[in-house]
Amino acid sequence: MANKSSMNDLFLHELRDIYHAEKQLTKALPKMARAASSDELKQAFQMHLEQTQGQIERLEQVFDQLDAAKRGTRCEAMEGLVEEAREIMEEGLSPELLDAALIAAAQKVEHYEIASYGTLHAFAEACGMNDVAKLLAETLQEEKDTDAKLNDLAISKVNKRAMESAQS
Amino acid sequence: MANKSSMNDLFLHELRDIYHAEKQLTKALPKMARAASSDELKQAFQMHLEQTQGQIERLEQVFDQLDAAKRGTRCEAMEGLVEEAREIMEEGLSPELLDAALIAAAQKVEHYEIASYGTLHAFAEACGMNDVAKLLAETLQEEKDTDAKLNDLAISKVNKRAMESAQS
Repeated sequence: MANKSSMNDLFLHELRDIYHAEKQLTKALPKMARAASSDELKQAFQMHLEQTQGQIERLEQVFDQLDAAKRGTRCEAMEGLVEEAREIMEEGLSPELLDAALIAAAQKVEHYEIASYGTLHAFAEACGMNDVAKLLAETLQEEKDTDAKLNDLAISKVNKRAMESAQS
Repeated sequence: MANKSSMNDLFLHELRDIYHAEKQLTKALPKMARAASSDELKQAFQMHLEQTQGQIERLEQVFDQLDAAKRGTRCEAMEGLVEEAREIMEEGLSPELLDAALIAAAQKVEHYEIASYGTLHAFAEACGMNDVAKLLAETLQEEKDTDAKLNDLAISKVNKRAMESAQS
């Protein structure tokens, strides 16, 4: 998008960026779920995949409300984050270390999304698009909840297991 | 780092990633401060530059405590985020829209750092490196505070100004 002359233009650019990002994530999450060895982590990734599909539907509702074409814009930063998660799975880590590294990669993805939906929500409110802002707030909360869940899982179980496994 | 066989290896990899990221950021922030037109945003970027220099010193203390060489590892995701901020400055946006777009880009960078320092802090605790964990917790809090400050600035002033300027 070459010309951005209004907040609506900035909003649409950000919307297309996260639409592309979420679609990439739906390809990566099933692989991350298969690669995880902790049952809880597998479930967390599977649950987030279902959630991500719902988030994509919300984004499509937003495109409809704006009467804008549903298409993504390639985002190199997010591609880098998803690629990082893929590379981790090919490093030959022990199952316990792999779980810890997968959570670290997934939390970077979540934080990218938290920043992006936070901006989209704030832009929607500034533009007076209240229905759109409400949809985005739902997704923003889901991303924050997913990040918090991954954090708890890392601290309460996965990191300890990774530490103990490498010492044994 | 090809072989990662312990939590310490994962920690060091993440440490080198964020060390490289912070160094890139010290080059981008002065440009972002110059590009911003809101005085408060300029000040926020300048203050975060000083903070980032202190955070790099903390990372160097961590390298020393681990007796590890102080060197960064190139991280494509963070390079993409910093590059995005640079591109925004060349898009010919109006000053008001540029401020809104710069905050959006800066919050993505902050969230990358929040995820990274969160992981480093959790890894340090799992490894029983209490002094290191304490240093990282200080930086983590600074990154969260910076993100919250940018968020407040966007919502209370910058986005409204951007919206009004494009309508006038």
